[in-house]
Amino acid sequence: MTQRITILAGGMGGARFCLGVRHLLMGSDTEITVVGNTGDDIWVHGLRVCPDLDSIMYTLGGGISSERGWGREAETFHAKEELAAYGVEPTWFGLGDRDIATHLVRTTSLNAGYSLSDVTEALCHRWQPGVRLIPMSDDRAETHVIVDDPDAGDAEQPLRVAIHFQEWWIRHRASLPAHGFSIVGIEDARPAPGVIDAIAGADTVILSPSNPVVSIGTILAVPGIRDALHATTAPIVGLSPIIGGAPVRGMADACLAAIGVPTTAAGVAEHYGARSAGGILDAWLVDTVDASATAEIEGLGIACAAVPLLMTSPDATARMAAEALRLAGPRVR
Amino acid sequence: MTQRITILAGGMGGARFCLGVRHLLMGSDTEITVVGNTGDDIWVHGLRVCPDLDSIMYTLGGGISSERGWGREAETFHAKEELAAYGVEPTWFGLGDRDIATHLVRTTSLNAGYSLSDVTEALCHRWQPGVRLIPMSDDRAETHVIVDDPDAGDAEQPLRVAIHFQEWWIRHRASLPAHGFSIVGIEDARPAPGVIDAIAGADTVILSPSNPVVSIGTILAVPGIRDALHATTAPIVGLSPIIGGAPVRGMADACLAAIGVPTTAAGVAEHYGARSAGGILDAWLVDTVDASATAEIEGLGIACAAVPLLMTSPDATARMAAEALRLAGPRVR
Repeated sequence: MTQRITILAGGMGGARFCLGVRHLLMGSDTEITVVGNTGDDIWVHGLRVCPDLDSIMYTLGGGISSERGWGREAETFHAKEELAAYGVEPTWFGLGDRDIATHLVRTTSLNAGYSLSDVTEALCHRWQPGVRLIPMSDDRAETHVIVDDPDAGDAEQPLRVAIHFQEWWIRHRASLPAHGFSIVGIEDARPAPGVIDAIAGADTVILSPSNPVVSIGTILAVPGIRDALHATTAPIVGLSPIIGGAPVRGMADACLAAIGVPTTAAGVAEHYGARSAGGILDAWLVDTVDASATAEIEGLGIACAAVPLLMTSPDATARMAAEALRLAGPRVR
Repeated sequence: MTQRITILAGGMGGARFCLGVRHLLMGSDTEITVVGNTGDDIWVHGLRVCPDLDSIMYTLGGGISSERGWGREAETFHAKEELAAYGVEPTWFGLGDRDIATHLVRTTSLNAGYSLSDVTEALCHRWQPGVRLIPMSDDRAETHVIVDDPDAGDAEQPLRVAIHFQEWWIRHRASLPAHGFSIVGIEDARPAPGVIDAIAGADTVILSPSNPVVSIGTILAVPGIRDALHATTAPIVGLSPIIGGAPVRGMADACLAAIGVPTTAAGVAEHYGARSAGGILDAWLVDTVDASATAEIEGLGIACAAVPLLMTSPDATARMAAEALRLAGPRVR
């Protein structure tokens, strides 16, 4: 019988993890569905850019820049240079020339009335990622970050403003202290077609080692998705993106600090919570350096194991995926 | 007193001619207004592309590819390659990566409600072409070519279809016999702000050596422009784009054949017609190889002179412009 794996994933970390899962299960009778975060999406120069979906698609399709980890291999940035020469903002967004083609196809299709799901499927016809990639939602719901107005100067009580996640992440490199996050439009966002079914019909649901706040957290914020996770008969296993008290990559610490969650493997596990206690986790993998936290995590009602969690190669990542599936156990709970 | 020169211009030939006029008049108290053809404009992959305006802007702004004569210097075509890899038509349009930045700025501005005139002025802030560049119209009016359906196979009486000028010009390299031209939307197009005033207030109006059918002819087809040419007190002088029975560049012969005009310097002069006989020309410059045609042209009521008309350098082109101004004579007629 076909094994069904559903992965909730953010960008780079999620993409690399999916590559490992595909590597592990290649040749087996398995359907992998990846639900991608779209809270990072942004309109840039009239183009609809979906950084996380594209990272997953390019990584699994063999087109990702191995050097940068985002965007396309053999990329040039001539259009970006020229936009800057025109003095048109934003100048800080990494819009590559090859990448622009993806955004042009997406934008014209969206403007013609196709949904983001349709467009993602069409783009994947070219990339053949070997998984079914679906956005968390076809509706616009973009993460904004509440910060002190960076243009306020030395005012004693600076105004708080909400800037787009990408502006915070890329332009300010997450260095402006975040007071919180606001996902504009999330109340009215519906899960994209297939998302709820992929969770309900899965044999295993995996939370990839992505940012718990602005990647996985955003997917969980889509009305209906958390309920589907509560209801599914599939075990839900997560992999800690925090190793030894620091994010493996990215700036998850800044995001966790903003919502008052400790940047530890146990802190994130507690934040997600045990399914038995109203949370979403049945099992949680931590890195071997965090082995001492397993007892604390099991005390929360979450099965836990400590294994190497550095995605240094598809093989290493496949071993992580195997451990996750093993710890999650079979579907019958 | 400021001398006012108004030039009607198409793409490459028009751009090079304008460069010569600017070269000639640099340092003098002269205002040059260039009315650019927009009948070649096209939506490509959701981008609004204005080939003639951009050729003029890039040429006068020092950004044109000297090798190709169109598009940007140091250009790459990575987005174009990727669009082809996605299988998205059109694949034949020469969309360069640097060039795309111009189209993105234009498209977002147009979509935000700015007029093409506004956008062109804004783009020229960067390029500083040294002339005032205005589109013939802010309204969409795109040239289509009536051809036998190229997909009809060997049918005895193939259906006639109208394809976009760019498809005919670039994809088919003007090799499909044209039965005629149709400028879709031209009936409702209005001259852009400043066009009529630039013609009425000029000291000299010059028809650049551009394609008489699909460049100059399109400008003349905008309701109101031909009347303004009839009414202006400025002399109107044209330069023949046909030398020795062939176009200097481009495929004007295919266009002229389609409307039954001989591909000769005299043929084009007669097509434009003498202002005294309801046409638009007071004077017409032909190349020295066509000197024998001057008597025939003068017989039409058009002042004529034969001078070298090859735009081999800005200096050579400046000499052509000087001859045109000399032949046109002063404003008082």
